[in-house]
Amino acid sequence: MSTSNKFKVLITGYEPFGEEKVNPSEIVAKEAALAVGKLENVDVVAAVLPVSFKRARTALNELLKTHKPDIALSLGLWGGISYVTLERVAINVMDARIPDNDGNQPIDEPIEPEGPAAYFTTLPIKSILKKLREEGIPAMISNSAGTFLCNFALYELLHHGATFGYPKRAGYMHIPYLPEQASVKRSWCGIPPSMSLDLVVKAVVTAVKVTVERFHIIEDEKIPP
Amino acid sequence: MSTSNKFKVLITGYEPFGEEKVNPSEIVAKEAALAVGKLENVDVVAAVLPVSFKRARTALNELLKTHKPDIALSLGLWGGISYVTLERVAINVMDARIPDNDGNQPIDEPIEPEGPAAYFTTLPIKSILKKLREEGIPAMISNSAGTFLCNFALYELLHHGATFGYPKRAGYMHIPYLPEQASVKRSWCGIPPSMSLDLVVKAVVTAVKVTVERFHIIEDEKIPP
Amino acid sequence: MSTSNKFKVLITGYEPFGEEKVNPSEIVAKEAALAVGKLENVDVVAAVLPVSFKRARTALNELLKTHKPDIALSLGLWGGISYVTLERVAINVMDARIPDNDGNQPIDEPIEPEGPAAYFTTLPIKSILKKLREEGIPAMISNSAGTFLCNFALYELLHHGATFGYPKRAGYMHIPYLPEQASVKRSWCGIPPSMSLDLVVKAVVTAVKVTVERFHIIEDEKIPP
Amino acid sequence: MSTSNKFKVLITGYEPFGEEKVNPSEIVAKEAALAVGKLENVDVVAAVLPVSFKRARTALNELLKTHKPDIALSLGLWGGISYVTLERVAINVMDARIPDNDGNQPIDEPIEPEGPAAYFTTLPIKSILKKLREEGIPAMISNSAGTFLCNFALYELLHHGATFGYPKRAGYMHIPYLPEQASVKRSWCGIPPSMSLDLVVKAVVTAVKVTVERFHIIEDEKIPP
Repeated sequence: MSTSNKFKVLITGYEPFGEEKVNPSEIVAKEAALAVGKLENVDVVAAVLPVSFKRARTALNELLKTHKPDIALSLGLWGGISYVTLERVAINVMDARIPDNDGNQPIDEPIEPEGPAAYFTTLPIKSILKKLREEGIPAMISNSAGTFLCNFALYELLHHGATFGYPKRAGYMHIPYLPEQASVKRSWCGIPPSMSLDLVVKAVVTAVKVTVERFHIIEDEKIPP
Repeated sequence: MSTSNKFKVLITGYEPFGEEKVNPSEIVAKEAALAVGKLENVDVVAAVLPVSFKRARTALNELLKTHKPDIALSLGLWGGISYVTLERVAINVMDARIPDNDGNQPIDEPIEPEGPAAYFTTLPIKSILKKLREEGIPAMISNSAGTFLCNFALYELLHHGATFGYPKRAGYMHIPYLPEQASVKRSWCGIPPSMSLDLVVKAVVTAVKVTVERFHIIEDEKIPP
Repeated sequence: MSTSNKFKVLITGYEPFGEEKVNPSEIVAKEAALAVGKLENVDVVAAVLPVSFKRARTALNELLKTHKPDIALSLGLWGGISYVTLERVAINVMDARIPDNDGNQPIDEPIEPEGPAAYFTTLPIKSILKKLREEGIPAMISNSAGTFLCNFALYELLHHGATFGYPKRAGYMHIPYLPEQASVKRSWCGIPPSMSLDLVVKAVVTAVKVTVERFHIIEDEKIPP
Repeated sequence: MSTSNKFKVLITGYEPFGEEKVNPSEIVAKEAALAVGKLENVDVVAAVLPVSFKRARTALNELLKTHKPDIALSLGLWGGISYVTLERVAINVMDARIPDNDGNQPIDEPIEPEGPAAYFTTLPIKSILKKLREEGIPAMISNSAGTFLCNFALYELLHHGATFGYPKRAGYMHIPYLPEQASVKRSWCGIPPSMSLDLVVKAVVTAVKVTVERFHIIEDEKIPP
């Protein structure tokens, strides 16, 4: 816990990338931070990461060193899902299908050449899943955050936690399109799935709340994925 | 227009069927009717139809004879879609994959043995689509309401309109699962899509509003589907 | 039956359209015609239709007048499906999301201004479905052939049959991508579904065989869709 | 390479599980082994693994100790995909949504308590992907083999390789339903995707061939996923 006797929480989103003009993760990170900031035992910082391997690495590490968060939750868009995900694991690879916003496209390169193949999230994802289900919010454990910026952010958060001791709890949530984004897109089955802003924000706030409540409990709840 | 100088609007939903314990179309019909009822030039009736070919036929025809609506909009669940639909056409067939709630399962039988093969909706679906898109609500024109109760209700509404002159405007909207319904389901791609209650209700209200505004305009707007 | 005491069968595919460089329906129509031509009581004609409302109308009507087929089966690509469809119905509307290959994009225009709202297929689609299921070929009854060239071809075939008495049996089958086509595409769930050429060809041949066998039987088999 | 100057290749499939009566991975493993066995520099062993964490562990380790394969490729069904996958990584966790065929359902337990969080495949998956694309076979790199038996087998193969030096090259391929399996199933979008037996077998043979050719080349080809 931070010196102020409050939990320091970092919530990040991403700027737009590829063909998208809006990244809901940015909007959600800011809205969720407002709600989380009202919890009495929490200090919150919201930040927007660049969609650049090089600049996101710098930005994340500066955020961590400056704020020394107890808990870090990064958010990113996964266009096409109809639920929020709780990412289980980050793998030590960058393998980009499209260039990042700086034009870099690493292929099968390690994020940290000396780092382990993978880190498991340190969020209590099953306890969060259980609570999200109780709240009727579509949510799933995901076993892959891909090999682009999302996996990268989660790996860096967990690597930092393993190396420096903070954030003690770190994780990643993928979020769907917002309805107004989805409404102008087409896939062969029709318009892709979406989730309303208030439901996604509620999911993020729940994830933080459950993590705060279980901050000192080592064992996560044992429920099927 | 009805004698009261107000537009009489009938909105129907369906009771639960198959494995579903809740039918969002019932909830949405009632909520939307509350909102539509606040429009100054509209009188609204909400009703819940049985998922039975026999009883739905009776119920629909009694509702039409009793209320003589100017506008009728029926709603039904289409589990798996991520948008609301505006149905373009009803076809003169009942072909059930599962029995209805009375245990009847008609196979390739006409709804009205003397009726035409199909009726086109009399709602201004392109004008409604345009407005829904402006509002950022995922919506699509659909060219098939299936061959179960949904298509049946639309055919009956349009057949009644063609035969007796009312409802002058009739149509059908398929709606997705609610988030809390979807959250406990699984398909191979994960949890199926859903749409929040307030967004679906807004879509229904918009459909009614646009229909009222264009009640006396014969030509629908000409935009691609 | 044609004067030669053989059943005259017309099988059509479409040329490529939109972003596609290959239209499997063209390949399948030709391959299936080779196989159907070996049936002892059948004369077969294969043709490729232009993806143009204007030229397809002319081409179809000339094919029908020239060959006076007893049976006509048109094929078209529906990118994204994982099964072949047996189309139940054609509706009297052209409503194009993209321009045809001549640059025409009709919006909500009737195919035949004096024609009925819809025609039901005159193929024994349930009997065909039953046989395809026995053969282990993924197949479904579809209640909409869309509002582009596919629905157009089916409507014209059925309108011609209703007006001039031939083709007595007419229908439409949508087919999936070929594997090599799908392999270079992406949707959010991965590569879209496909079906191997020999399986699609087998489906078409089965559809023709069953139609020939039941040519003089008015009632289709009664099985659920 | 094995002492016989031939590459020893192990190909495994799984027995049926859950509601499935057939597991195509079993059929494909046997058919692919027949084809691989005809390559002049390869000795092949095919095996079927039980869908049981306990018995699969024993069976896999006995197969490895008995045959000391240079190359091991395990296959499993992923109902719903429309392509074969080349799995990139195995993670050190068992987290079962349904019980295995022995009734065991481990929740968030490590496969190897002393093992690393993950192993990357030692197959040249990008080179295989490139070749499969040239052959027009729908194929994708996958970043998660799940947390059931498929991930388990891959982790065990790679852990054995890391511990004992063989298999030097090990990997996992998920395969779709066969068409006849898919034809009797339904999802909301219709019948699920499938791939014909000969195409899946070809994909497996190609994967083995490319692995043999690049057995002594450390670097995989650098292409985007």
